[in-house]
Amino acid sequence: MQHCENTTMTTVNTTIRTKLSRLPERGRFDTETIHAILDAMPMCHVAYMREGKPAIVPTLQWREGDRVFWHGSTGAASHLTGQENDVCLNVCVFDGLVLARSAFHHSANYRSVTIFGTPEAVIEHDEKTQLMKNFVEGLFPGRWDQLRPLKDKEVRATSILSLPITEASAKIRTGLPVDEDEDYAYNVWAGVLPISSQFDEPEADEFTAADVERPDYLVGRTIGE
Amino acid sequence: MQHCENTTMTTVNTTIRTKLSRLPERGRFDTETIHAILDAMPMCHVAYMREGKPAIVPTLQWREGDRVFWHGSTGAASHLTGQENDVCLNVCVFDGLVLARSAFHHSANYRSVTIFGTPEAVIEHDEKTQLMKNFVEGLFPGRWDQLRPLKDKEVRATSILSLPITEASAKIRTGLPVDEDEDYAYNVWAGVLPISSQFDEPEADEFTAADVERPDYLVGRTIGE
Repeated sequence: MQHCENTTMTTVNTTIRTKLSRLPERGRFDTETIHAILDAMPMCHVAYMREGKPAIVPTLQWREGDRVFWHGSTGAASHLTGQENDVCLNVCVFDGLVLARSAFHHSANYRSVTIFGTPEAVIEHDEKTQLMKNFVEGLFPGRWDQLRPLKDKEVRATSILSLPITEASAKIRTGLPVDEDEDYAYNVWAGVLPISSQFDEPEADEFTAADVERPDYLVGRTIGE
Repeated sequence: MQHCENTTMTTVNTTIRTKLSRLPERGRFDTETIHAILDAMPMCHVAYMREGKPAIVPTLQWREGDRVFWHGSTGAASHLTGQENDVCLNVCVFDGLVLARSAFHHSANYRSVTIFGTPEAVIEHDEKTQLMKNFVEGLFPGRWDQLRPLKDKEVRATSILSLPITEASAKIRTGLPVDEDEDYAYNVWAGVLPISSQFDEPEADEFTAADVERPDYLVGRTIGE
């Protein structure tokens, strides 16, 4: 199925930038789809301008409602904010290789979200602290209160940036290859080589006391699903 | 181990753009490390400028010698080439979440390569055909000759871009959390939650004849290693 049914009501705004010029039938603009992809994969890539040229940085993102937040260095915050400093953030889950009967129709299965906008740096101390807590708790529910409390200087040294999920789109390819009609008779294996990711066995460091229980948030987790 | 030993001789050029302003101790500039990361993960992100603003596209890359190639749409080729159209390409393998004793020292394990430059579009028909063959054969050795032969119009409709792996850097974080000395006594689980990816059971489509053998290139493959 290359064409996905759009079944939800809420949609983001489409603009000239989120309009898909290539394979628009793979586009999805409903917030449910966009949120699900963001929530499935913390790793994101942020593209920004540095001295007039594009640069890219992989980092971790998390979503709260209709905004996406990510962690930058304090240097990055000055790079990344300001009217002239639009960024583009992408999250992409790589789901498989698609083997068709012709080289031309080989493809990949993936779920991708792209968001454009001018990032806002979170400045206010308590708001930053709350967001850091939300990030940790989102990944590891209950962990925040187990940790050595945050120091003021650590809050100051942490940069958090955010974008509204408004100028945004998802692009998804799933399923089997799509060949030319006359190629289906070709005598070659065709199908999908799926890719999946998982969390493996947690590895405690040597300083974790033997009587410290393994927290529940380390067990039975999924990523990219 | 946050600090990695650099054991090889051949290095790429470091420039103001590849110099790591944040956590430079994680930087690696030897070609062996850079090539290994590119070879481990075909999915890449390319950042480019579109009407003066950054945009980003996930796509598949492959390496031949000291160049990286990727597949773009024919529209992308016109966007992406030309002296004023530098791009930045990143490949990042997400290896795990790092749980420290303070929120501040939480981190991620990853292997990342970033390459800057002005991409070249491959124009010449036979060279494009050869590169498409190299891409398919690199992923699936022996498959090219099993496929329905490429048509001229398919070569024309395929855009291949490339960058030299010269203005490039790798950034790697591996291993356990690094906490403040006074935090190690804190009574909380600390360590790494590793992430790995794999190819799952290949799924043939319904048009693959029952007597078509499953090719060897589908079995025992790894990704991200």
